[in-house]
Amino acid sequence: MPTDIALAKRMSAIQPSFIRDILKAADDPKVISFAGGLPNRDYFPGEELAELTTRLMRDNPEQMLQYGQSEGELALREKIAERYWQNQRLDIDIDNILITNGSQQGIDLIGKVLLDVGDSVVIEAPGYLGAIQSLMFYQPNFLPVPIDHDGLDLDVFAQALEKKPKLVYTVPNFQNPTGNSYSETTRQCMAEGIGHEHCLIVEDDPYGEVRFDGESCHSFYHSIPEQTLLMGSFSKTIAPGLRVGWIVAPKPIAKKLLVAKQAADLHTSRLSQHLILAFINDGGYPSHLNRLCQGYQQRCQLMGECLDNLFGNQIKRSRPQGGMFLWIEFADHIDTVQLFVQAAKNGVVFVPAQPFYTDQKPRHAARLNFSSSDFQQIETGVQRLHQSFESDSC
Amino acid sequence: MPTDIALAKRMSAIQPSFIRDILKAADDPKVISFAGGLPNRDYFPGEELAELTTRLMRDNPEQMLQYGQSEGELALREKIAERYWQNQRLDIDIDNILITNGSQQGIDLIGKVLLDVGDSVVIEAPGYLGAIQSLMFYQPNFLPVPIDHDGLDLDVFAQALEKKPKLVYTVPNFQNPTGNSYSETTRQCMAEGIGHEHCLIVEDDPYGEVRFDGESCHSFYHSIPEQTLLMGSFSKTIAPGLRVGWIVAPKPIAKKLLVAKQAADLHTSRLSQHLILAFINDGGYPSHLNRLCQGYQQRCQLMGECLDNLFGNQIKRSRPQGGMFLWIEFADHIDTVQLFVQAAKNGVVFVPAQPFYTDQKPRHAARLNFSSSDFQQIETGVQRLHQSFESDSC
Repeated sequence: MPTDIALAKRMSAIQPSFIRDILKAADDPKVISFAGGLPNRDYFPGEELAELTTRLMRDNPEQMLQYGQSEGELALREKIAERYWQNQRLDIDIDNILITNGSQQGIDLIGKVLLDVGDSVVIEAPGYLGAIQSLMFYQPNFLPVPIDHDGLDLDVFAQALEKKPKLVYTVPNFQNPTGNSYSETTRQCMAEGIGHEHCLIVEDDPYGEVRFDGESCHSFYHSIPEQTLLMGSFSKTIAPGLRVGWIVAPKPIAKKLLVAKQAADLHTSRLSQHLILAFINDGGYPSHLNRLCQGYQQRCQLMGECLDNLFGNQIKRSRPQGGMFLWIEFADHIDTVQLFVQAAKNGVVFVPAQPFYTDQKPRHAARLNFSSSDFQQIETGVQRLHQSFESDSC
Repeated sequence: MPTDIALAKRMSAIQPSFIRDILKAADDPKVISFAGGLPNRDYFPGEELAELTTRLMRDNPEQMLQYGQSEGELALREKIAERYWQNQRLDIDIDNILITNGSQQGIDLIGKVLLDVGDSVVIEAPGYLGAIQSLMFYQPNFLPVPIDHDGLDLDVFAQALEKKPKLVYTVPNFQNPTGNSYSETTRQCMAEGIGHEHCLIVEDDPYGEVRFDGESCHSFYHSIPEQTLLMGSFSKTIAPGLRVGWIVAPKPIAKKLLVAKQAADLHTSRLSQHLILAFINDGGYPSHLNRLCQGYQQRCQLMGECLDNLFGNQIKRSRPQGGMFLWIEFADHIDTVQLFVQAAKNGVVFVPAQPFYTDQKPRHAARLNFSSSDFQQIETGVQRLHQSFESDSC
């Protein structure tokens, strides 16, 4: 009988995750993985968090263990608001902040509250796979806009705005998968265009604090706060396993997101929230971030050098100033899915371009993660990739 | 501009939460609250959990802090399967188990994977408010079936089945809000009916282990495993703030739920999951449960006695054998929303019947929570309730 049970129509659009299969290949300890999007485990502040957890559970077990508020812990929301003011001079009221299970949940709640079937959503091409997968459940009409080294293609974006999208989904800092960031000019032009339309921009910013080069640009919240859904996360800066992120939203939308959060899972783990808060309050966060950014910079630089040395002008690549990813493009005739098969045999994996696109799927590019490997792995991994490329091209 | 932004159509069905307003009244420390659904904080195993957390974070920080699997931690899923076998002789494969952020998330994922707009869903009347709120986002057609002391009204249920529902949502043990449980006969009749239809039963069982009287009946998984979505939770037995629950589903559905979970928030807090697992493995869980059940039994009994002594035959009430709630019914002409206003002034709050219904809303009943108050509060609270009733009736 159960095989007869019809799933919801929205499920027909959902594809099995390509990435899941890829990550399985990376389970073999002999395989060097540039595929996942994992922060480097060596930078988890494990000891500090262990001490803080003990203190939290001893001092106030009820606060960790009892049901909490759907909007998240008040003190953590205050801390997030305070940091926006200190770091970016953004004046954000705590009532505009909702704590979520990582920013992934933010995307789902935004889709739930705002999207009807067929609503148009601007998406970066290539774009964040987790956002594509999450929004697909709401059956939108994706409007892909190419992203280059200084952000969205503004001409294509202007055309997309004419189609009256409801949402514009972006990762303006160290984008996943390209590692590119939006320039100040791109941001200004986009904000101006959006300001004339009835739409919201989702500024997904999990990597903003993982900057190791260059200068920060302004958040869209700075210019069009009433049309910006600004999402943040502690997954890349402290620890993803704790699942703590947040959304900043205009109040009328924030209220609806709160109702959706309550219906989705009541609230986020209080122990996780308090642990994050205690770590920030303990004072070691700036030096921790500093160490993390330095480590990632070294890895990014090394991977770039290895790629340049071995591939020369056989590839084009991005030059990230932060984050965890680097994007490489081969000549048009190279199929990175085919390259993936060869590379996996040679002991290195990455993510081919395909899953990051919602429409035409260029086959000649790939995402490389530089954050999770050590230096030796980066050197060896890029060598293996090059060997695979050479043997594949022959 | 943002005030012009249209929400998704599904949002038009969503009401602001009545309960939220009620719980605000309960914030005043002088008010005795029978309103919330909180476990008693005195039974949180705070010290044990503090020690275990320290150990976990020291011994294996990466396991707590890195990204984890969407299906949940393998060892926890194995433990859940093992306990189903030990306690109920249910043979459940770990691939059928998905860890969720409390069972509330399970309801949302089930709606997402299975419900199209207008699909029929059988719901208990009165029914669990969190399920009604969560499923409302999927715009179903609710088919309310009255619940009495031994479960659903079987005649009305049979009529509901004729309308070809996709889901039957139930809380067969110590139901929220009534505290009633389904008898073995009711379960058998329902299973037989469902077995002839193309539908699934959701057996939401957060209170099953909080039994302090009577004998367990069989889960629907026992008779119709291929049509049962069995949900469990550690929120009532260990700690709700950690947000750990699970769904057991037939494999084809479990696979889809997993994709939905991944899109919704990647995975549940790993620290929360391992903390629960460590507590169970540490061996103190059975004695902890025993102590908890005894404490709840005393509270339930005391509240029942106080109600009987003061109200006599002015009310009818349920006789729960477990869980956290007791249901009282006044004469038909009594309006418990009005009584609530008077009672709040007198320093006691509860939840009037209305929000637990999806259609006609009887106004003469109320839910009382007995788990979170101490003995003195129960005595005083029932006295205040009676005074309010007397003054209100005059």
